[in-house]
Amino acid sequence: MLCSDLLAQADRRQQSAGKAQSPRQDSGVEVVAKPLKVCIVGSGNWGSVVSKIIGSNVKNMKKFAPTVKMWVFEEVVSGRKLTDIINSDHENVKYLPGHRLPENVVATPSLSQAVQDADLLVFASPHQFVRTICDEIADIVPKTALGLSLIKGIDEGPEGLKLVSDIIREKVDIDVSVLMGANIASEVAAEQFCETTIGSKVLQNGLLFKELLQTPKFRVTVVEDSDTVELCGALKNIVAMGVGFCDGFCCGDSTKATVIRLGLKEMIAFGRTFCKGQVSTATFLESCGVADLVSSCYGGRNRKVAEAFARTGKTIEELEKEMLNGQKLQGPHTSAQVYRILRKKGLLDKFPLFTVVYQICHEGRAVAEMIPCLQNHPEHR
Amino acid sequence: MLCSDLLAQADRRQQSAGKAQSPRQDSGVEVVAKPLKVCIVGSGNWGSVVSKIIGSNVKNMKKFAPTVKMWVFEEVVSGRKLTDIINSDHENVKYLPGHRLPENVVATPSLSQAVQDADLLVFASPHQFVRTICDEIADIVPKTALGLSLIKGIDEGPEGLKLVSDIIREKVDIDVSVLMGANIASEVAAEQFCETTIGSKVLQNGLLFKELLQTPKFRVTVVEDSDTVELCGALKNIVAMGVGFCDGFCCGDSTKATVIRLGLKEMIAFGRTFCKGQVSTATFLESCGVADLVSSCYGGRNRKVAEAFARTGKTIEELEKEMLNGQKLQGPHTSAQVYRILRKKGLLDKFPLFTVVYQICHEGRAVAEMIPCLQNHPEHR
Repeated sequence: MLCSDLLAQADRRQQSAGKAQSPRQDSGVEVVAKPLKVCIVGSGNWGSVVSKIIGSNVKNMKKFAPTVKMWVFEEVVSGRKLTDIINSDHENVKYLPGHRLPENVVATPSLSQAVQDADLLVFASPHQFVRTICDEIADIVPKTALGLSLIKGIDEGPEGLKLVSDIIREKVDIDVSVLMGANIASEVAAEQFCETTIGSKVLQNGLLFKELLQTPKFRVTVVEDSDTVELCGALKNIVAMGVGFCDGFCCGDSTKATVIRLGLKEMIAFGRTFCKGQVSTATFLESCGVADLVSSCYGGRNRKVAEAFARTGKTIEELEKEMLNGQKLQGPHTSAQVYRILRKKGLLDKFPLFTVVYQICHEGRAVAEMIPCLQNHPEHR
Repeated sequence: MLCSDLLAQADRRQQSAGKAQSPRQDSGVEVVAKPLKVCIVGSGNWGSVVSKIIGSNVKNMKKFAPTVKMWVFEEVVSGRKLTDIINSDHENVKYLPGHRLPENVVATPSLSQAVQDADLLVFASPHQFVRTICDEIADIVPKTALGLSLIKGIDEGPEGLKLVSDIIREKVDIDVSVLMGANIASEVAAEQFCETTIGSKVLQNGLLFKELLQTPKFRVTVVEDSDTVELCGALKNIVAMGVGFCDGFCCGDSTKATVIRLGLKEMIAFGRTFCKGQVSTATFLESCGVADLVSSCYGGRNRKVAEAFARTGKTIEELEKEMLNGQKLQGPHTSAQVYRILRKKGLLDKFPLFTVVYQICHEGRAVAEMIPCLQNHPEHR
């Protein structure tokens, strides 16, 4: 697609987003915009938490349609279909047990039916299913729809880095914003106060998603360097693994703070090296940056499994089975993607923390070698 | 003093620092610079830890004189003078028990004798004694000496903010660098890996102190916006109190990360408003910034006492007696200074976190009101 076409398309979307924001006034006649239909693509832990917020928010806003569709990958739980359980009991017993979902969140097992008339698509599937999902919905999603990706992770592309939002943009051909932040799912579900960041290349679209998602306890800021926001969400998991390894050999808070800081600096340097668009230091001071990094390095599961890895000597796969009910951990996978991207560009020595985390996870390097690897970090020269 | 005089003076110091760095070569004759004499002014917990590092480092470097003087405020401990204990047993039994100090660290109870021939002065006294100490040494310290302040805290001056280093500069009339970082004293003493930041208006002087202090486990970076470095060391204690209050009512890591981030943003905004010199966002990404903030908000004593304050309802003074052996906590004092500075400028509403921490500590505001105060933070607008 030509740049001019892209600009025209972005323009149309901006107009459509603008239209949605307030009743249009044309020659004295008030035209009320059609309520925007929301669909959540995915129903795991985080997708379910977000459905709670969205379902509750849309009830009070004329701008959004009152029913929120949620695509659920059908499974049978205790002899009943998960979609039936959600639609009758209003609880995702498998991925968010103990929390009531709003009744206006309607589960559907058909992906195509879920997305076919959506104005706003919230992508919340696991990283590894994105391509398949996008292929399935590419010809069905209305071309005026706007996407919001909550998916954490990155891919390797021919030019180095490939973001999940890029995959959605390319396959589905819609504008995609991203949402990342210091949001431990169980804590957001329990309505503890926190913030999040929406990154949006078309600011207006990000502001629309902010309206959809903000609550008094879930505060949203919107920034334009969307790629940086998305990258933060992926890279912080590598740093959290590093902190977990430190916990495994009983480091104190000063060492952990150092690993967090050096990790943040490598995140920034990685963004500057591989992002095509603007990479502003200020974005790393948003919730998606330093706050998410800190909460992941103290409270997240990547840290926890990495600590167990250091203490027990078991493999990551064994610990995923034991500690995560078989779910895949994001950090080791992201560290491998990042390692390949860096190696291809001959940049491993500029990113010693990312590199050593990869080597410990995947190449049998001793956990105790983490600190010596950081003693001559480029930041100290 | 005129600006041109100050520049000339800074220039002389740069030359003196340069001289110290390498033997000077004059018309083929090598002139070896006289070794620089180091004096540590103060012998509390952090001062003693730093004396361990300096005493050990100078042994291997011709640039520095082999004996390090340490001024010790004389006290009697178990019937013996503290200076005698340090000089014969090589342990500061009162403030750093269990750690052997190098034998070349020599304690002296006379402040004037300690400083009279010093080339490098490391200030490590409690904040409240700085003015008295400076008044006593002002006419004794050689005018070519360089200072390094480790002291955390700020004062209120006629134009708003007054830094501890400013007090030393004004009273003693020497160039002063500062050192701040994610350095929990007990962890540095145990030689756990960490980083620190030196802020130095004359870069050369900062690099000289880096040589004096850096070890493989204690990594030093030097930046030029010294005021920002110093401000970080003071303001982080207010944020740590805020995080401690949150711990008191059992917030999760997402909420804590949010308080840390909003605190960091207020630290930056405060610096931008009140520092006279350069305030670079990059400095907040150094060890003195985000790393020290994180370690204080998880491991520091301001957080710990604030949590106890929220849980028990006791006063800060009672908790200082019970938990800190009567030592004063920095956070409540700094929050009061900051509150007065902000109120004078009519800026309280721009700094809701700093303000509410002050009000909880000093005006009986309920701890539970912390979160509502942050829900409409200027950062969310």
